Amino acid sequence: MSANGRIRVLYADTDQMGQAYYGNYLKWFEAGRGEWFRRKGMSYRVLEEQGYYLPVIEAYCKYLKPAYYDDMLYIVTSASLPSPARLKFTYRIYKEGSEEIIAEGYTVHAFLNNSKKPTRPPAFLKELIEKEGAE
Amino acid sequence: MSANGRIRVLYADTDQMGQAYYGNYLKWFEAGRGEWFRRKGMSYRVLEEQGYYLPVIEAYCKYLKPAYYDDMLYIVTSASLPSPARLKFTYRIYKEGSEEIIAEGYTVHAFLNNSKKPTRPPAFLKELIEKEGAE
Amino acid sequence: MSANGRIRVLYADTDQMGQAYYGNYLKWFEAGRGEWFRRKGMSYRVLEEQGYYLPVIEAYCKYLKPAYYDDMLYIVTSASLPSPARLKFTYRIYKEGSEEIIAEGYTVHAFLNNSKKPTRPPAFLKELIEKEGAE
Amino acid sequence: MSANGRIRVLYADTDQMGQAYYGNYLKWFEAGRGEWFRRKGMSYRVLEEQGYYLPVIEAYCKYLKPAYYDDMLYIVTSASLPSPARLKFTYRIYKEGSEEIIAEGYTVHAFLNNSKKPTRPPAFLKELIEKEGAE
Repeated sequence: MSANGRIRVLYADTDQMGQAYYGNYLKWFEAGRGEWFRRKGMSYRVLEEQGYYLPVIEAYCKYLKPAYYDDMLYIVTSASLPSPARLKFTYRIYKEGSEEIIAEGYTVHAFLNNSKKPTRPPAFLKELIEKEGAE
Repeated sequence: MSANGRIRVLYADTDQMGQAYYGNYLKWFEAGRGEWFRRKGMSYRVLEEQGYYLPVIEAYCKYLKPAYYDDMLYIVTSASLPSPARLKFTYRIYKEGSEEIIAEGYTVHAFLNNSKKPTRPPAFLKELIEKEGAE
Repeated sequence: MSANGRIRVLYADTDQMGQAYYGNYLKWFEAGRGEWFRRKGMSYRVLEEQGYYLPVIEAYCKYLKPAYYDDMLYIVTSASLPSPARLKFTYRIYKEGSEEIIAEGYTVHAFLNNSKKPTRPPAFLKELIEKEGAE
Repeated sequence: MSANGRIRVLYADTDQMGQAYYGNYLKWFEAGRGEWFRRKGMSYRVLEEQGYYLPVIEAYCKYLKPAYYDDMLYIVTSASLPSPARLKFTYRIYKEGSEEIIAEGYTVHAFLNNSKKPTRPPAFLKELIEKEGAE
Protein backbone atom coordinates (compact mmCIF):
# COMPACT_ATOMS: atom_id res chain seq x y z
CA MET A 1 0.00 0.00 0.00
CA SER A 2 2.90 2.31 0.37
CA ALA A 3 6.14 2.51 -1.46
CA ASN A 4 8.67 5.18 -0.52
CA GLY A 5 6.19 6.82 1.84
CA ARG A 6 3.61 7.49 -0.86
CA ILE A 7 0.07 6.17 -1.09
CA ARG A 8 -2.17 6.05 -4.16
CA VAL A 9 -5.88 6.34 -3.31
CA LEU A 10 -7.56 3.26 -4.78
CA TYR A 11 -11.15 2.89 -5.94
CA ALA A 12 -11.46 0.49 -3.00
CA ASP A 13 -10.76 3.45 -0.70
CA THR A 14 -13.55 5.68 -2.05
CA ASP A 15 -17.18 5.72 -0.93
CA GLN A 16 -20.40 6.86 -2.55
CA MET A 17 -19.72 10.45 -1.45
CA GLY A 18 -17.01 10.29 -4.12
CA GLN A 19 -14.05 10.63 -1.75
CA ALA A 20 -11.84 8.45 0.44
CA TYR A 21 -13.75 6.81 3.32
CA TYR A 22 -12.71 8.19 6.71
CA GLY A 23 -11.70 4.82 8.14
CA ASN A 24 -8.92 4.40 5.56
CA TYR A 25 -6.84 7.19 7.05
CA LEU A 26 -5.94 4.99 10.02
CA LYS A 27 -4.50 2.49 7.53
CA TRP A 28 -2.53 5.33 5.94
CA PHE A 29 -1.28 6.39 9.36
CA GLU A 30 -0.03 2.82 9.72
CA ALA A 31 1.78 3.12 6.37
CA GLY A 32 3.29 6.38 7.68
CA ARG A 33 4.69 4.81 10.84
CA GLY A 34 6.00 1.87 8.82
CA GLU A 35 8.00 4.38 6.78
CA TRP A 36 9.12 6.15 9.96
CA PHE A 37 10.73 2.89 11.14
CA ARG A 38 12.39 2.32 7.78
CA ARG A 39 13.73 5.88 7.69
CA LYS A 40 15.37 5.18 11.05
CA GLY A 41 17.00 2.04 9.67
CA MET A 42 14.59 -0.26 11.48
CA SER A 43 11.45 -2.07 10.56
CA TYR A 44 8.30 -2.76 12.54
CA ARG A 45 8.44 -6.29 11.13
CA VAL A 46 11.84 -6.84 12.76
CA LEU A 47 10.66 -5.21 16.01
CA GLU A 48 7.88 -7.81 16.20
CA GLU A 49 10.33 -10.59 15.38
CA GLN A 50 12.35 -9.38 18.38
CA GLY A 51 9.28 -9.79 20.55
CA TYR A 52 7.86 -6.26 20.75
CA TYR A 53 4.27 -5.45 19.87
CA LEU A 54 2.88 -1.94 19.62
CA PRO A 55 -0.91 -2.20 19.75
CA VAL A 56 -2.77 1.08 19.21
CA ILE A 57 -4.56 2.26 22.34
CA GLU A 58 -5.78 5.61 21.01
CA ALA A 59 -6.28 7.08 17.54
CA TYR A 60 -7.39 10.51 16.39
CA CYS A 61 -7.83 12.01 12.94
CA LYS A 62 -8.92 15.45 11.77
CA TYR A 63 -10.13 15.51 8.15
CA LEU A 64 -9.36 18.87 6.57
CA LYS A 65 -9.80 18.28 2.81
CA PRO A 66 -11.18 15.28 0.92
CA ALA A 67 -8.82 12.84 -0.79
CA TYR A 68 -10.03 11.61 -4.17
CA TYR A 69 -9.57 8.48 -6.26
CA ASP A 70 -6.12 8.26 -7.84
CA ASP A 71 -4.69 11.06 -5.66
CA MET A 72 -1.12 10.43 -4.65
CA LEU A 73 -0.73 11.15 -0.94
CA TYR A 74 2.30 11.32 1.26
CA ILE A 75 2.46 11.01 4.99
CA VAL A 76 4.86 12.85 7.26
CA THR A 77 5.28 11.01 10.55
CA SER A 78 7.07 11.90 13.78
CA ALA A 79 7.40 10.03 17.07
CA SER A 80 7.58 10.90 20.75
CA LEU A 81 7.45 9.18 24.16
CA PRO A 82 4.69 10.95 26.12
CA SER A 83 5.24 8.60 29.10
CA PRO A 84 7.68 5.77 29.94
CA ALA A 85 5.49 3.03 28.47
CA ARG A 86 3.78 4.91 25.65
CA LEU A 87 4.84 5.72 22.10
CA LYS A 88 3.01 8.42 20.16
CA PHE A 89 3.11 8.93 16.41
CA THR A 90 1.88 12.17 14.86
CA TYR A 91 0.87 12.25 11.19
CA ARG A 92 0.24 14.88 8.54
CA ILE A 93 -1.13 13.76 5.17
CA TYR A 94 -0.48 15.89 2.05
CA LYS A 95 -1.42 15.55 -1.59
CA GLU A 96 1.74 15.21 -3.62
CA GLY A 97 2.80 18.51 -5.11
CA SER A 98 0.88 20.58 -2.59
CA GLU A 99 1.75 21.98 0.82
CA GLU A 100 -1.79 21.80 2.04
CA ILE A 101 -2.44 19.31 4.83
CA ILE A 102 -5.50 17.23 4.02
CA ALA A 103 -5.59 15.27 7.30
CA GLU A 104 -3.67 15.11 10.54
CA GLY A 105 -3.80 13.01 13.64
CA TYR A 106 -2.03 10.73 16.01
CA THR A 107 -1.91 7.23 17.42
CA VAL A 108 -0.79 6.22 20.92
CA HIS A 109 0.76 2.77 21.36
CA ALA A 110 1.50 0.49 24.29
CA PHE A 111 4.55 -1.79 24.38
CA LEU A 112 3.86 -5.48 24.80
CA ASN A 113 6.32 -8.35 24.98
CA ASN A 114 6.01 -11.77 23.39
CA SER A 115 3.53 -12.95 25.99
CA LYS A 116 1.43 -9.82 25.30
CA LYS A 117 2.31 -8.29 28.68
CA PRO A 118 3.13 -4.56 29.06
CA THR A 119 6.83 -3.84 28.85
CA ARG A 120 9.22 -0.89 28.48
CA PRO A 121 10.35 0.22 25.01
CA PRO A 122 13.76 -1.14 23.94
CA ALA A 123 16.66 1.25 24.62
CA PHE A 124 17.59 1.65 20.94
CA LEU A 125 14.08 2.83 20.10
CA LYS A 126 14.01 5.28 23.04
CA GLU A 127 17.29 6.71 21.89
CA LEU A 128 16.14 7.20 18.31
CA ILE A 129 13.01 8.98 19.42
CA GLU A 130 14.84 11.21 21.88
CA LYS A 131 17.30 12.13 19.15
CA GLU A 132 14.43 12.98 16.81
CA GLY A 133 12.94 15.35 19.40
CA ALA A 134 16.28 17.14 19.64
CA GLU A 135 16.67 17.64 15.87
CA MET B 1 -21.85 -5.79 8.52
CA SER B 2 -24.47 -4.97 11.06
CA ALA B 3 -27.89 -6.36 11.63
CA ASN B 4 -29.97 -5.13 14.56
CA GLY B 5 -27.03 -3.16 15.96
CA ARG B 6 -24.75 -6.17 16.26
CA ILE B 7 -21.46 -6.82 14.51
CA ARG B 8 -19.67 -10.13 14.13
CA VAL B 9 -15.87 -9.76 13.93
CA LEU B 10 -14.79 -11.37 10.67
CA TYR B 11 -11.45 -12.99 9.85
CA ALA B 12 -11.07 -10.06 7.44
CA ASP B 13 -11.11 -7.74 10.45
CA THR B 14 -8.27 -9.46 12.29
CA ASP B 15 -4.55 -8.83 11.87
CA GLN B 16 -1.43 -10.85 12.61
CA MET B 17 -1.50 -9.71 16.26
CA GLY B 18 -4.53 -12.02 16.44
CA GLN B 19 -7.11 -9.31 17.17
CA ALA B 20 -9.26 -6.83 15.26
CA TYR B 21 -7.23 -4.17 13.40
CA TYR B 22 -7.66 -0.70 14.89
CA GLY B 23 -8.90 0.90 11.68
CA ASN B 24 -12.00 -1.31 11.61
CA TYR B 25 -13.50 0.37 14.64
CA LEU B 26 -14.29 3.47 12.58
CA LYS B 27 -16.34 1.24 10.29
CA TRP B 28 -18.12 -0.16 13.34
CA PHE B 29 -18.78 3.39 14.57
CA GLU B 30 -20.42 3.95 11.17
CA ALA B 31 -22.58 0.86 11.72
CA GLY B 32 -23.50 2.31 15.12
CA ARG B 33 -24.68 5.64 13.75
CA GLY B 34 -26.59 3.86 10.98
CA GLU B 35 -28.49 2.03 13.71
CA TRP B 36 -28.97 5.31 15.64
CA PHE B 37 -30.81 6.73 12.62
CA ARG B 38 -32.94 3.62 12.26
CA ARG B 39 -33.83 3.65 15.96
CA LYS B 40 -35.10 7.20 15.46
CA GLY B 41 -37.30 6.08 12.57
CA MET B 42 -34.97 7.63 10.00
CA SER B 43 -32.22 6.33 7.79
CA TYR B 44 -28.96 7.91 6.71
CA ARG B 45 -29.74 6.59 3.22
CA VAL B 46 -32.94 8.65 3.10
CA LEU B 47 -31.15 11.69 4.57
CA GLU B 48 -28.72 11.57 1.63
CA GLU B 49 -31.59 11.12 -0.81
CA GLN B 50 -33.05 14.33 0.65
CA GLY B 51 -29.80 16.10 -0.15
CA TYR B 52 -27.93 16.07 3.15
CA TYR B 53 -24.41 14.70 3.52
CA LEU B 54 -22.63 14.23 6.82
CA PRO B 55 -18.91 13.89 6.10
CA VAL B 56 -16.74 13.06 9.10
CA ILE B 57 -14.41 15.91 10.05
CA GLU B 58 -12.98 14.38 13.22
CA ALA B 59 -12.74 10.86 14.62
CA TYR B 60 -11.36 9.52 17.86
CA CYS B 61 -11.17 6.03 19.31
CA LYS B 62 -9.81 4.67 22.58
CA TYR B 63 -9.07 0.94 22.50
CA LEU B 64 -9.61 -0.61 25.92
CA LYS B 65 -9.73 -4.36 25.26
CA PRO B 66 -8.98 -6.36 22.11
CA ALA B 67 -11.83 -7.73 19.98
CA TYR B 68 -11.22 -11.23 18.61
CA TYR B 69 -12.34 -13.20 15.58
CA ASP B 70 -15.96 -14.33 15.80
CA ASP B 71 -16.75 -12.05 18.76
CA MET B 72 -20.21 -10.57 18.59
CA LEU B 73 -20.02 -6.84 19.34
CA TYR B 74 -22.68 -4.30 19.90
CA ILE B 75 -22.41 -0.55 19.61
CA VAL B 76 -24.28 1.97 21.74
CA THR B 77 -24.50 5.32 19.98
CA SER B 78 -25.74 8.73 21.07
CA ALA B 79 -25.87 12.07 19.26
CA SER B 80 -25.47 15.75 20.16
CA LEU B 81 -25.13 19.13 18.44
CA PRO B 82 -21.93 20.70 19.82
CA SER B 83 -22.38 23.77 17.58
CA PRO B 84 -25.05 24.93 15.09
CA ALA B 85 -23.41 23.26 12.09
CA ARG B 86 -21.87 20.21 13.73
CA LEU B 87 -23.26 16.81 14.68
CA LYS B 88 -21.38 14.61 17.12
CA PHE B 89 -21.89 10.89 17.63
CA THR B 90 -20.47 9.14 20.70
CA TYR B 91 -19.92 5.37 20.66
CA ARG B 92 -19.30 2.62 23.16
CA ILE B 93 -18.54 -0.87 21.89
CA TYR B 94 -19.28 -3.92 24.06
CA LYS B 95 -18.88 -7.64 23.63
CA GLU B 96 -22.28 -9.25 23.67
CA GLY B 97 -23.13 -10.63 27.07
CA SER B 98 -20.64 -8.41 28.89
CA GLU B 99 -20.90 -4.95 30.41
CA GLU B 100 -17.25 -4.20 29.80
CA ILE B 101 -16.58 -1.46 27.23
CA ILE B 102 -13.92 -2.62 24.77
CA ALA B 103 -13.67 0.65 22.82
CA GLU B 104 -15.19 4.10 22.92
CA GLY B 105 -14.91 7.20 20.81
CA TYR B 106 -16.66 9.84 18.77
CA THR B 107 -17.04 11.30 15.31
CA VAL B 108 -17.83 14.93 14.45
CA HIS B 109 -19.73 15.61 11.23
CA ALA B 110 -20.36 18.66 9.06
CA PHE B 111 -23.64 19.15 7.18
CA LEU B 112 -23.36 19.55 3.42
CA ASN B 113 -26.13 20.10 0.89
CA ASN B 114 -26.47 18.53 -2.54
CA SER B 115 -23.81 20.81 -4.02
CA LYS B 116 -21.46 19.80 -1.17
CA LYS B 117 -21.69 23.26 0.47
CA PRO B 118 -22.00 23.68 4.26
CA THR B 119 -25.57 23.91 5.42
CA ARG B 120 -27.59 23.81 8.66
CA PRO B 121 -29.01 20.50 9.89
CA PRO B 122 -32.67 19.91 8.96
CA ALA B 123 -35.14 20.92 11.71
CA PHE B 124 -36.47 17.38 12.22
CA LEU B 125 -32.97 16.07 12.95
CA LYS B 126 -32.22 18.92 15.38
CA GLU B 127 -35.42 18.19 17.20
CA LEU B 128 -34.69 14.48 17.55
CA ILE B 129 -31.23 15.15 18.93
CA GLU B 130 -32.44 17.77 21.38
CA LYS B 131 -35.10 15.38 22.59
CA GLU B 132 -32.46 12.70 23.10
CA GLY B 133 -30.36 15.05 25.22
CA ALA B 134 -33.37 15.71 27.45
CA GLU B 135 -34.15 12.03 28.04
CA MET C 1 -20.28 -8.04 10.02
CA SER C 2 -22.82 -10.76 10.05
CA ALA C 3 -25.45 -11.67 12.54
CA ASN C 4 -27.82 -14.54 11.82
CA GLY C 5 -26.43 -14.84 8.29
CA ARG C 6 -27.35 -11.30 7.31
CA ILE C 7 -25.05 -8.48 6.23
CA ARG C 8 -25.86 -4.77 6.11
CA VAL C 9 -23.93 -2.92 3.36
CA LEU C 10 -22.00 -0.14 5.09
CA TYR C 11 -20.90 3.19 3.65
CA ALA C 12 -17.39 1.77 4.06
CA ASP C 13 -18.32 -0.92 1.54
CA THR C 14 -19.43 1.48 -1.20
CA ASP C 15 -17.22 3.13 -3.81
CA GLN C 16 -17.57 6.23 -5.96
CA MET C 17 -19.61 4.27 -8.52
CA GLY C 18 -22.29 4.39 -5.79
CA GLN C 19 -22.39 0.63 -5.14
CA ALA C 20 -20.54 -1.98 -3.09
CA TYR C 21 -16.90 -2.43 -4.13
CA TYR C 22 -16.24 -5.82 -5.74
CA GLY C 23 -13.54 -6.85 -3.26
CA ASN C 24 -16.01 -6.80 -0.36
CA TYR C 25 -17.90 -9.82 -1.65
CA LEU C 26 -15.03 -12.10 -0.65
CA LYS C 27 -15.45 -10.81 2.91
CA TRP C 28 -19.17 -11.56 2.66
CA PHE C 29 -18.38 -15.05 1.39
CA GLU C 30 -16.29 -15.44 4.54
CA ALA C 31 -19.29 -14.35 6.64
CA GLY C 32 -21.35 -16.94 4.75
CA ARG C 33 -19.01 -19.82 5.51
CA GLY C 34 -18.79 -18.70 9.16
CA GLU C 35 -22.57 -19.10 9.33
CA TRP C 36 -22.36 -22.44 7.56
CA PHE C 37 -20.14 -23.73 10.40
CA ARG C 38 -22.49 -22.35 13.04
CA ARG C 39 -25.52 -23.90 11.34
CA LYS C 40 -23.75 -27.26 11.58
CA GLY C 41 -23.17 -26.76 15.30
CA MET C 42 -19.48 -25.96 14.81
CA SER C 43 -17.44 -22.82 14.55
CA TYR C 44 -14.43 -21.97 12.43
CA ARG C 45 -12.95 -20.38 15.56
CA VAL C 46 -13.07 -23.72 17.37
CA LEU C 47 -11.73 -25.56 14.31
CA GLU C 48 -8.65 -23.30 14.43
CA GLU C 49 -8.33 -23.82 18.17
CA GLN C 50 -8.24 -27.56 17.40
CA GLY C 51 -5.33 -26.96 15.05
CA TYR C 52 -6.98 -26.83 11.62
CA TYR C 53 -6.50 -23.94 9.22
CA LEU C 54 -8.43 -23.50 5.99
CA PRO C 55 -6.53 -20.99 3.85
CA VAL C 56 -8.26 -19.99 0.61
CA ILE C 57 -6.42 -21.24 -2.46
CA GLU C 58 -8.97 -20.14 -5.07
CA ALA C 59 -11.81 -17.62 -5.12
CA TYR C 60 -14.33 -16.74 -7.79
CA CYS C 61 -17.22 -14.28 -7.85
CA LYS C 62 -19.78 -13.38 -10.51
CA TYR C 63 -21.45 -10.01 -9.94
CA LEU C 64 -25.02 -10.07 -11.27
CA LYS C 65 -26.67 -6.99 -9.73
CA PRO C 66 -25.15 -4.12 -7.73
CA ALA C 67 -25.54 -4.00 -3.94
CA TYR C 68 -26.21 -0.54 -2.53
CA TYR C 69 -25.55 1.24 0.74
CA ASP C 70 -27.84 0.08 3.53
CA ASP C 71 -29.07 -2.96 1.61
CA MET C 72 -29.57 -6.00 3.80
CA LEU C 73 -28.01 -9.02 2.15
CA TYR C 74 -28.12 -12.66 3.03
CA ILE C 75 -25.74 -15.37 1.96
CA VAL C 76 -26.66 -18.97 1.25
CA THR C 77 -23.63 -21.23 1.58
CA SER C 78 -23.08 -24.91 0.84
CA ALA C 79 -19.98 -27.10 1.13
CA SER C 80 -18.45 -30.02 -0.75
CA LEU C 81 -15.20 -32.01 -0.88
CA PRO C 82 -14.01 -31.88 -4.50
CA SER C 83 -10.89 -33.90 -3.61
CA PRO C 84 -9.55 -35.60 -0.45
CA ALA C 85 -7.60 -32.55 0.71
CA ARG C 86 -9.84 -29.75 -0.57
CA LEU C 87 -12.96 -28.10 0.79
CA LYS C 88 -15.17 -26.02 -1.50
CA PHE C 89 -17.79 -23.52 -0.42
CA THR C 90 -20.37 -22.24 -2.87
CA TYR C 91 -22.20 -18.95 -2.18
CA ARG C 92 -25.28 -17.17 -3.42
CA ILE C 93 -25.96 -13.63 -2.20
CA TYR C 94 -29.51 -12.26 -2.18
CA LYS C 95 -31.07 -8.98 -1.14
CA GLU C 96 -33.40 -9.59 1.74
CA GLY C 97 -36.98 -9.91 0.58
CA SER C 98 -36.05 -10.81 -2.98
CA GLU C 99 -35.37 -14.09 -4.71
CA GLU C 100 -32.97 -12.53 -7.16
CA ILE C 101 -29.33 -13.59 -6.79
CA ILE C 102 -27.07 -10.53 -6.86
CA ALA C 103 -23.76 -12.42 -6.74
CA GLU C 104 -22.56 -15.99 -6.66
CA GLY C 105 -19.23 -17.69 -6.41
CA TYR C 106 -17.03 -20.14 -4.60
CA THR C 107 -13.87 -20.52 -2.58
CA VAL C 108 -11.59 -23.57 -2.49
CA HIS C 109 -9.65 -24.25 0.73
CA ALA C 110 -6.67 -26.38 1.70
CA PHE C 111 -6.42 -28.04 5.12
CA LEU C 112 -3.36 -27.16 7.16
CA ASN C 113 -2.37 -28.41 10.59
CA ASN C 114 -0.88 -26.41 13.45
CA SER C 115 2.54 -26.32 11.82
CA LYS C 116 0.93 -25.02 8.61
CA LYS C 117 1.53 -28.31 6.77
CA PRO C 118 -1.12 -29.88 4.49
CA THR C 119 -3.33 -32.37 6.27
CA ARG C 120 -6.58 -34.29 5.73
CA PRO C 121 -9.88 -32.80 6.92
CA PRO C 122 -11.06 -34.08 10.33
CA ALA C 123 -13.53 -36.98 10.10
CA PHE C 124 -16.39 -35.07 11.75
CA LEU C 125 -16.18 -32.34 9.10
CA LYS C 126 -16.06 -34.86 6.24
CA GLU C 127 -19.13 -36.56 7.64
CA LEU C 128 -21.10 -33.32 7.92
CA ILE C 129 -20.30 -32.34 4.36
CA GLU C 130 -21.14 -35.77 2.96
CA LYS C 131 -24.45 -35.67 4.81
CA GLU C 132 -25.17 -32.25 3.31
CA GLY C 133 -24.54 -33.56 -0.19
CA ALA C 134 -27.06 -36.34 0.42
CA GLU C 135 -29.83 -34.02 1.63
CA MET D 1 -1.76 1.93 -1.93
CA SER D 2 0.32 1.69 -5.02
CA ALA D 3 3.13 3.80 -6.33
CA ASN D 4 4.94 2.82 -9.52
CA GLY D 5 3.10 -0.50 -9.66
CA ARG D 6 4.37 -1.66 -6.27
CA ILE D 7 2.34 -2.50 -3.20
CA ARG D 8 3.57 -2.77 0.37
CA VAL D 9 1.56 -5.27 2.45
CA LEU D 10 0.23 -3.37 5.46
CA TYR D 11 -0.60 -4.71 8.89
CA ALA D 12 -4.19 -3.83 7.93
CA ASP D 13 -3.94 -6.41 5.14
CA THR D 14 -2.91 -9.31 7.39
CA ASP D 15 -5.21 -11.63 9.31
CA GLN D 16 -4.74 -13.87 12.34
CA MET D 17 -3.31 -16.64 10.15
CA GLY D 18 -0.31 -14.28 9.90
CA GLN D 19 -0.61 -13.57 6.17
CA ALA D 20 -2.48 -11.26 3.81
CA TYR D 21 -6.26 -11.83 3.84
CA TYR D 22 -7.52 -13.29 0.57
CA GLY D 23 -10.00 -10.48 -0.12
CA ASN D 24 -7.19 -7.91 -0.39
CA TYR D 25 -5.88 -9.39 -3.61
CA LEU D 26 -8.86 -7.99 -5.52
CA LYS D 27 -7.83 -4.53 -4.30
CA TRP D 28 -4.30 -5.22 -5.51
CA PHE D 29 -5.67 -6.35 -8.87
CA GLU D 30 -7.38 -2.94 -9.00
CA ALA D 31 -4.02 -1.25 -8.30
CA GLY D 32 -2.56 -3.34 -11.13
CA ARG D 33 -5.12 -2.25 -13.69
CA GLY D 34 -4.75 1.37 -12.55
CA GLU D 35 -1.06 1.07 -13.42
CA TRP D 36 -1.93 -0.61 -16.72
CA PHE D 37 -3.91 2.50 -17.72
CA ARG D 38 -1.09 4.81 -16.63
CA ARG D 39 1.51 2.78 -18.55
CA LYS D 40 -0.67 3.28 -21.65
CA GLY D 41 -0.68 7.04 -21.10
CA MET D 42 -4.27 7.00 -19.85
CA SER D 43 -5.91 6.95 -16.47
CA TYR D 44 -9.04 5.22 -15.25
CA ARG D 45 -9.90 8.48 -13.46
CA VAL D 46 -9.98 10.32 -16.80
CA LEU D 47 -11.92 7.47 -18.44
CA GLU D 48 -14.64 7.95 -15.82
CA GLU D 49 -14.56 11.71 -16.31
CA GLN D 50 -15.23 11.02 -20.00
CA GLY D 51 -18.32 9.06 -19.03
CA TYR D 52 -17.11 5.44 -19.11
CA TYR D 53 -17.49 3.08 -16.17
CA LEU D 54 -15.97 -0.39 -15.99
CA PRO D 55 -17.79 -2.31 -13.26
CA VAL D 56 -16.37 -5.74 -12.49
CA ILE D 57 -18.74 -8.56 -13.48
CA GLU D 58 -16.43 -11.48 -12.71
CA ALA D 59 -13.32 -11.93 -10.59
CA TYR D 60 -11.06 -14.90 -10.01
CA CYS D 61 -7.92 -15.37 -7.95
CA LYS D 62 -5.64 -18.36 -7.39
CA TYR D 63 -3.48 -18.06 -4.27
CA LEU D 64 -0.16 -19.83 -4.75
CA LYS D 65 2.03 -18.55 -1.91
CA PRO D 66 1.18 -16.42 1.12
CA ALA D 67 2.06 -12.71 1.18
CA TYR D 68 3.34 -11.45 4.52
CA TYR D 69 3.34 -8.16 6.37
CA ASP D 70 5.80 -5.65 4.93
CA ASP D 71 6.36 -7.67 1.74
CA MET D 72 6.75 -5.50 -1.31
CA LEU D 73 4.63 -6.89 -4.13
CA TYR D 74 4.40 -5.97 -7.75
CA ILE D 75 1.58 -6.69 -10.12
CA VAL D 76 1.95 -7.46 -13.81
CA THR D 77 -1.27 -6.71 -15.68
CA SER D 78 -2.38 -7.33 -19.24
CA ALA D 79 -5.68 -6.61 -21.03
CA SER D 80 -7.80 -8.24 -23.71
CA LEU D 81 -11.27 -7.92 -25.28
CA PRO D 82 -12.88 -11.37 -25.00
CA SER D 83 -16.11 -10.06 -26.61
CA PRO D 84 -17.21 -6.74 -28.14
CA ALA D 85 -18.57 -5.37 -24.86
CA ARG D 86 -16.22 -6.97 -22.36
CA LEU D 87 -12.76 -6.05 -21.11
CA LYS D 88 -10.62 -8.62 -19.33
CA PHE D 89 -7.58 -7.92 -17.19
CA THR D 90 -5.18 -10.71 -16.24
CA TYR D 91 -2.88 -10.30 -13.23
CA ARG D 92 0.20 -11.97 -11.84
CA ILE D 93 1.48 -10.89 -8.42
CA TYR D 94 5.15 -11.33 -7.51
CA LYS D 95 7.23 -10.56 -4.47
CA GLU D 96 9.81 -7.99 -5.36
CA GLY D 97 13.15 -9.56 -6.14
CA SER D 98 11.68 -12.97 -6.93
CA GLU D 99 10.35 -14.54 -10.09
CA GLU D 100 7.89 -16.71 -8.23
CA ILE D 101 4.22 -15.88 -8.81
CA ILE D 102 2.37 -15.70 -5.49
CA ALA D 103 -1.11 -15.14 -6.94
CA GLU D 104 -2.73 -14.86 -10.33
CA GLY D 105 -6.20 -14.16 -11.59
CA TYR D 106 -8.44 -12.05 -13.74
CA THR D 107 -11.34 -9.62 -13.72
CA VAL D 108 -13.96 -9.19 -16.45
CA HIS D 109 -15.53 -5.74 -16.87
CA ALA D 110 -18.60 -4.37 -18.62
CA PHE D 111 -18.64 -0.92 -20.23
CA LEU D 112 -21.28 1.48 -18.96
CA ASN D 113 -21.97 5.04 -20.06
CA ASN D 114 -22.81 8.01 -17.88
CA SER D 115 -26.38 6.83 -17.36
CA LYS D 116 -25.04 3.40 -16.30
CA LYS D 117 -26.28 1.73 -19.50
CA PRO D 118 -24.16 -0.85 -21.38
CA THR D 119 -22.08 0.70 -24.13
CA ARG D 120 -19.20 -0.23 -26.45
CA PRO D 121 -15.60 0.52 -25.40
CA PRO D 122 -14.17 3.78 -26.83
CA ALA D 123 -12.15 3.28 -30.04
CA PHE D 124 -8.88 4.52 -28.50
CA LEU D 125 -9.09 1.89 -25.75
CA LYS D 126 -9.88 -0.90 -28.23
CA GLU D 127 -6.90 0.12 -30.30
CA LEU D 128 -4.51 0.09 -27.36
CA ILE D 129 -5.63 -3.36 -26.28
CA GLU D 130 -5.42 -4.80 -29.78
CA LYS D 131 -1.92 -3.38 -30.10
CA GLU D 132 -0.95 -5.01 -26.80
CA GLY D 133 -2.17 -8.39 -28.01
CA ALA D 134 -0.01 -8.07 -31.12
CA GLU D 135 3.15 -7.21 -29.20
